[in-house]
Amino acid sequence: MAQNSAMSFIQPEAVLSHWQGHRRLTRRLIEAFPDDQLYTFSVGGMRPFGLLAQEMLAMTVPMVKGIVTGEWDYDEDKTPRPKQDMLRLWDEATEQLNTYWAKIRPEQFAQQAVAFGQYPGAVHDLILYVIDNEIHHRGQGYVYLRSLDIEPPPFPDRS
Amino acid sequence: MAQNSAMSFIQPEAVLSHWQGHRRLTRRLIEAFPDDQLYTFSVGGMRPFGLLAQEMLAMTVPMVKGIVTGEWDYDEDKTPRPKQDMLRLWDEATEQLNTYWAKIRPEQFAQQAVAFGQYPGAVHDLILYVIDNEIHHRGQGYVYLRSLDIEPPPFPDRS
Repeated sequence: MAQNSAMSFIQPEAVLSHWQGHRRLTRRLIEAFPDDQLYTFSVGGMRPFGLLAQEMLAMTVPMVKGIVTGEWDYDEDKTPRPKQDMLRLWDEATEQLNTYWAKIRPEQFAQQAVAFGQYPGAVHDLILYVIDNEIHHRGQGYVYLRSLDIEPPPFPDRS
Repeated sequence: MAQNSAMSFIQPEAVLSHWQGHRRLTRRLIEAFPDDQLYTFSVGGMRPFGLLAQEMLAMTVPMVKGIVTGEWDYDEDKTPRPKQDMLRLWDEATEQLNTYWAKIRPEQFAQQAVAFGQYPGAVHDLILYVIDNEIHHRGQGYVYLRSLDIEPPPFPDRS
């Protein structure tokens, strides 16, 4: 057991909680956008937040599904959707993430994989990439909201 | 040993590599800003990137130092600095992060601490918060650079 704790920074369950905490915050950003700005407003010629959120959806469940099943489907939906549809898709992904996560064999996290047939890496790094990408683009969303004169949800609150 | 891998998502050394990869990318953003925009340019009334980078410096080494020594010093420098000074401070922090990281006892990552005397949490979550905060504010920096018509460094490249 001493050897055990010596080898671990964090356990899988805590990573899932951490990720779902981030996803709750990102959900609040989707909610904060006015419906008519979600797919139209942007700054600096970048993608509007609706498309960024759809990229997150295209990465999250497909990544963990791929790790579990070996089937890699990247199919990014770029259709502008009403905010309520986006929130429903987000909530469905929350459940699917929990379901697939429970099926990842613990020894897989340190093993190599090739995500979507083209991104090689240790499984833990592939997963961190998806989380980091969400944080990165959500940071963009904070600037969009401020530019729209809307107070964004507080960053530290993941409840 | 089977039990060991069963308990770990990622090992401490891999987290340090991951973090330093992010810090190399953030360093490239500092470099990408014109010297006269680093402390003046912003979007949506938010802080300029120089101040965001100083917040990152105020959190990174002081967090790992606090975990190692129990001494928590949050002393955010808000003095605008020439870009070369910022890069020098960044590189010094890179070395200090490596030095303190090596002194964290592995069993500490799962233990509770109170960072800076006011933020309670498991040590692994406190560390992830600092990394996430860097990614979050760097995402802001991407919007600033695009708004300045400067191509930002590619997000996936952490070399």
